Amino acid sequence: MNQKLRVGLLGAGRIGKLHGENLAHAVPNVELYAIADPFINDDIRQWAQELGIPQCYEDPQKIFEDPTIDAVFICSSTKTHADFIQRAAAAGKHIFCEKPIDTDLKKIKKAIEQVEKSNVKMQVGFVRRFDHNHKMVHDTVASGVLGKPHMIKVTSRDPDHQSMDYIKVSGGIFLDMTIHDFDMVRYLAGSEVVEVMAYGAALSGAGYEQYGDIDTAVVTMKFENGALGVIDNSRAAHYGYDQRTEVHCDKGCVQVANDLNDMSMISTAEGVQIAKPTWFFLERYNNAFIAEAQAFTDAVLFDKPIPVTGFDGLQPVKIAYAAEKSLKEGRPVKLKEIG
Amino acid sequence: MNQKLRVGLLGAGRIGKLHGENLAHAVPNVELYAIADPFINDDIRQWAQELGIPQCYEDPQKIFEDPTIDAVFICSSTKTHADFIQRAAAAGKHIFCEKPIDTDLKKIKKAIEQVEKSNVKMQVGFVRRFDHNHKMVHDTVASGVLGKPHMIKVTSRDPDHQSMDYIKVSGGIFLDMTIHDFDMVRYLAGSEVVEVMAYGAALSGAGYEQYGDIDTAVVTMKFENGALGVIDNSRAAHYGYDQRTEVHCDKGCVQVANDLNDMSMISTAEGVQIAKPTWFFLERYNNAFIAEAQAFTDAVLFDKPIPVTGFDGLQPVKIAYAAEKSLKEGRPVKLKEIG
Amino acid sequence: MNQKLRVGLLGAGRIGKLHGENLAHAVPNVELYAIADPFINDDIRQWAQELGIPQCYEDPQKIFEDPTIDAVFICSSTKTHADFIQRAAAAGKHIFCEKPIDTDLKKIKKAIEQVEKSNVKMQVGFVRRFDHNHKMVHDTVASGVLGKPHMIKVTSRDPDHQSMDYIKVSGGIFLDMTIHDFDMVRYLAGSEVVEVMAYGAALSGAGYEQYGDIDTAVVTMKFENGALGVIDNSRAAHYGYDQRTEVHCDKGCVQVANDLNDMSMISTAEGVQIAKPTWFFLERYNNAFIAEAQAFTDAVLFDKPIPVTGFDGLQPVKIAYAAEKSLKEGRPVKLKEIG
Amino acid sequence: MNQKLRVGLLGAGRIGKLHGENLAHAVPNVELYAIADPFINDDIRQWAQELGIPQCYEDPQKIFEDPTIDAVFICSSTKTHADFIQRAAAAGKHIFCEKPIDTDLKKIKKAIEQVEKSNVKMQVGFVRRFDHNHKMVHDTVASGVLGKPHMIKVTSRDPDHQSMDYIKVSGGIFLDMTIHDFDMVRYLAGSEVVEVMAYGAALSGAGYEQYGDIDTAVVTMKFENGALGVIDNSRAAHYGYDQRTEVHCDKGCVQVANDLNDMSMISTAEGVQIAKPTWFFLERYNNAFIAEAQAFTDAVLFDKPIPVTGFDGLQPVKIAYAAEKSLKEGRPVKLKEIG
Repeated sequence: MNQKLRVGLLGAGRIGKLHGENLAHAVPNVELYAIADPFINDDIRQWAQELGIPQCYEDPQKIFEDPTIDAVFICSSTKTHADFIQRAAAAGKHIFCEKPIDTDLKKIKKAIEQVEKSNVKMQVGFVRRFDHNHKMVHDTVASGVLGKPHMIKVTSRDPDHQSMDYIKVSGGIFLDMTIHDFDMVRYLAGSEVVEVMAYGAALSGAGYEQYGDIDTAVVTMKFENGALGVIDNSRAAHYGYDQRTEVHCDKGCVQVANDLNDMSMISTAEGVQIAKPTWFFLERYNNAFIAEAQAFTDAVLFDKPIPVTGFDGLQPVKIAYAAEKSLKEGRPVKLKEIG
Repeated sequence: MNQKLRVGLLGAGRIGKLHGENLAHAVPNVELYAIADPFINDDIRQWAQELGIPQCYEDPQKIFEDPTIDAVFICSSTKTHADFIQRAAAAGKHIFCEKPIDTDLKKIKKAIEQVEKSNVKMQVGFVRRFDHNHKMVHDTVASGVLGKPHMIKVTSRDPDHQSMDYIKVSGGIFLDMTIHDFDMVRYLAGSEVVEVMAYGAALSGAGYEQYGDIDTAVVTMKFENGALGVIDNSRAAHYGYDQRTEVHCDKGCVQVANDLNDMSMISTAEGVQIAKPTWFFLERYNNAFIAEAQAFTDAVLFDKPIPVTGFDGLQPVKIAYAAEKSLKEGRPVKLKEIG
Repeated sequence: MNQKLRVGLLGAGRIGKLHGENLAHAVPNVELYAIADPFINDDIRQWAQELGIPQCYEDPQKIFEDPTIDAVFICSSTKTHADFIQRAAAAGKHIFCEKPIDTDLKKIKKAIEQVEKSNVKMQVGFVRRFDHNHKMVHDTVASGVLGKPHMIKVTSRDPDHQSMDYIKVSGGIFLDMTIHDFDMVRYLAGSEVVEVMAYGAALSGAGYEQYGDIDTAVVTMKFENGALGVIDNSRAAHYGYDQRTEVHCDKGCVQVANDLNDMSMISTAEGVQIAKPTWFFLERYNNAFIAEAQAFTDAVLFDKPIPVTGFDGLQPVKIAYAAEKSLKEGRPVKLKEIG
Repeated sequence: MNQKLRVGLLGAGRIGKLHGENLAHAVPNVELYAIADPFINDDIRQWAQELGIPQCYEDPQKIFEDPTIDAVFICSSTKTHADFIQRAAAAGKHIFCEKPIDTDLKKIKKAIEQVEKSNVKMQVGFVRRFDHNHKMVHDTVASGVLGKPHMIKVTSRDPDHQSMDYIKVSGGIFLDMTIHDFDMVRYLAGSEVVEVMAYGAALSGAGYEQYGDIDTAVVTMKFENGALGVIDNSRAAHYGYDQRTEVHCDKGCVQVANDLNDMSMISTAEGVQIAKPTWFFLERYNNAFIAEAQAFTDAVLFDKPIPVTGFDGLQPVKIAYAAEKSLKEGRPVKLKEIG
């Protein structure tokens, strides 16, 4: 392999462009060489030119069959992920794949098998693991200075409602939104979820119930190592992106508050105002996206372990299905009941 | 009734003395006139003298039969509460009773019935409702400025393990410790709990499991108004008394952090240190105990509604039994299954 | 001396009553035996009765000549302090005197001399030294863990304007308000002020300038130990009592923020609001007043050193005069130019 | 002019590279076309190639004489700034110049005159004005919601000592370090400094005194609008880059705390630890550097006012000289005494 990782980008939508810009500017040792998007147009071509990307394709096959390309970033629509993984792996390319791999457990497993068979590396895009705050919680727990983890808590609230058009096809809150938190609790606990109990309700009046969905959830769980966990979700915090994590351990507690827009405090007779949390994931996880791409690049170039594996991509989907089943049946559901 | 409320104090243990000192010094319009304690001794007599309490008895009956006494503070051992309530109510005395009224639901109900029949007022000692922090959360929610409550969260961790001798007879974490939090979620939600799911484990290594007890719990619940709730407990936070509450509503979130020993920050090359939370309930709820006694006094003297009623004393015990049942049977339990 | 300190209280105005209540209820080992106030009336007599104070006088001489009284609390108007100190000391009584001892340096010195001659103890009421926050800063610096102090910073802002009637006779901001901060910087630096430079202005529009006074001040100073200091004052913060201290040292910095009304945070689309600082000195320094009286009592009963001496009462007055001179003459003024 | 601003970069040292990378990647509408550095070498050429900079020169004249270049970024050593400004302006190029323009007031004035004569725009690199925190303070004050400013406070402490080799030639703390704060107080006050009083000392033991320099300073000042100001400096905070600003106004106060490495809190029996401030200016003002280059680009391309003018570059140097004079002569110095 070259000293630089030559990358092909699959999909130039919002998340694809985000990765593209990071790969072009913020991640050393990467050469962003080609993009492929079935909806390629002049805007995308111009964007590619400005980033200095030499090749623009409509057909992803051009990327898979280019022997000079070392790795792909799969940022296309979810339903294409599993197929692209298969083809990329078969072509011997290392893979960064946005989450989720798929919503079909069988397809996920087949994709993972192909990756293993092809002896390539694959990283799944659970970007929050690379956030400075959550990583601080993880690293403190993993270091052992606080002893064993007893309780893992995740608060995860979006700033505002998605459109009902989006909700209609989102797959439900657990697969669409909580999936990040299911990954987070595994990451923080250092252990597998064995049982889930989900409470949820449509309380906001925005209309989630008409699609059988909810806007508010509290999901509790047990981990293999005995720890307990709880995730609370809201589709609409209104004050910004509320993303807090906390782990209580043998010897104490590590927690993180939200990143704020600034560190200001304005004090008057009317009250004391501080800054709001950053608005959404682009603001909050901006640096995490860079760190995630960097970690993938380093793992491939220097043959280091992948920090978020295919298995890490599979588990949150299973937990999401368990949570769905729990909510529907009004009882705790064991992970082994799923898949 | 006099302009001052003449009070008899039943029980001069730790909590009795605490109330006694507040009644003597910090609550205007109260005359602390008598105490009764079956273990009365010279120390207690001297303590009473210093507070200027004229009468010291061994037998509580002396207080019940004194027609000049308007109200009693029942601070004796839990098993005496229901009986003392009955006798005090029958004697026409208003009653402040430490929590819990009893652990037997039937006895609680009978005590409440007697109070109603006797047309006296009774307040139960869920002191946390009078804490400036939790009250701020409650009042904000109750004011309606944030719209309807969606999610009620309570973190409640004791600073350190009780002795195993205590645990052995404590009645279990839900009746002994979480009971305060069951009251708190009702208070914050402004609604009744209808279903509970409890997870719990003995993780600390301190030995709770040998008494069938746990040291770590996560309890989720549904409220009549549709809101969801979660309580997390630990018997040993180690860093102090961790008492945080949070309510997420239609339009945003109100939450409170812990009171700290001071507002200091020490910054060096080694790190930045801030103060620990206050150590335990005596430090944290010091002013709340005064406010609670004040509220009772005002309710009686000025015929205002009692802020924490007999029914408020009953419900947390029912929720605690539901949580116990849930933990044992590994399933959500409806409140109507209890009692 | 008795096991309890028998105290006579001189002056039953706002600050006298505050000390009286603390002595009666919150400070063990004190017997508040008598009060004297030239304006004694039924209200004061009733207040005294409620506190259980046996003797109420119009004439302070009754207290000075009562051989059973061990100590006096001088809480009368400033112009009486020096005389009362003389008479109390001559009568062999230990003295707690509210600040300032006097505004006349000669009178202060004479009072101190009498105290020394009479071999009694005298504590001056610089109450902020007993605040948990400022004490934390002092103790950290004094412990030496941060090395030598380099810079002492005090922010001290009153919540709102005093009436102009008050300002007219206040003696000016430095003697009336900054005097507390002059004591604070000495306390925190552990060293004497040697030079002062004062800037000040009447910026609020409330009318201080018509009495030759100012509402905003920034005073810098040099200490004997080489450290530098700065105090900033405002007569009207509007958001509460702003009382922050900070010391930067060899190895880092210790600072304290304000006590707040509660630890709440309310987050909505409109913004994030936290609680305001406590409103004024009664709220902020409530516990400090108790600790100060306790310290005096302990110093007398157990013959421990007085924490705030007559010399500590003298120095801030000298610094205040130096600051006044600096402001008037537009130049730094050395302490040795004063008195 | 093109739709893109074609820029030549003068100087490819640490600060030049920082600007170069921002211009190449983070600022839209810029074409970084050429660099010139008298010490150009293979490393710089490779760096330029990676950024896609077409031209690399040793001689800056190549940039001045290239008619296709619209603007220059002067990031060379301070002693070259004034000359480069003259030449760039004469060649009709817009100028971004790192601070300070020069340390010689006459040279600064001549450079500004040339800029005015040539009718080009010039922005001086006081980057802190573009920091999200300080900008929040400025914007709040400038909006008028708090009324007139009364007091401007700046805390500015470097994380650790520079080498004594650096200090020897630094020009002294006021010209080297406090100059940023002199700009900041003008920016926050919205008014000119009219008088300065400086206290300073070498307290750290690192040896500043051997070069006639100091490591600790407290500088107070008066503004034309009547407000008062204070800056406190330390060369070695040890805990990170301490950069706080605060303005107290008619109706209240706006202040900003430091950006922290993360929002974590770790609580154990030993204490509660939060994150340290970001280490130094590269971490703290990273985004501010981008915003500053963006502001310059926008000002030129869209003919908007320059946010930091030549006059803004001149004034802090004058204030620095006034502070130096004040420290030497032990008296307040008026700005009009300088230059």
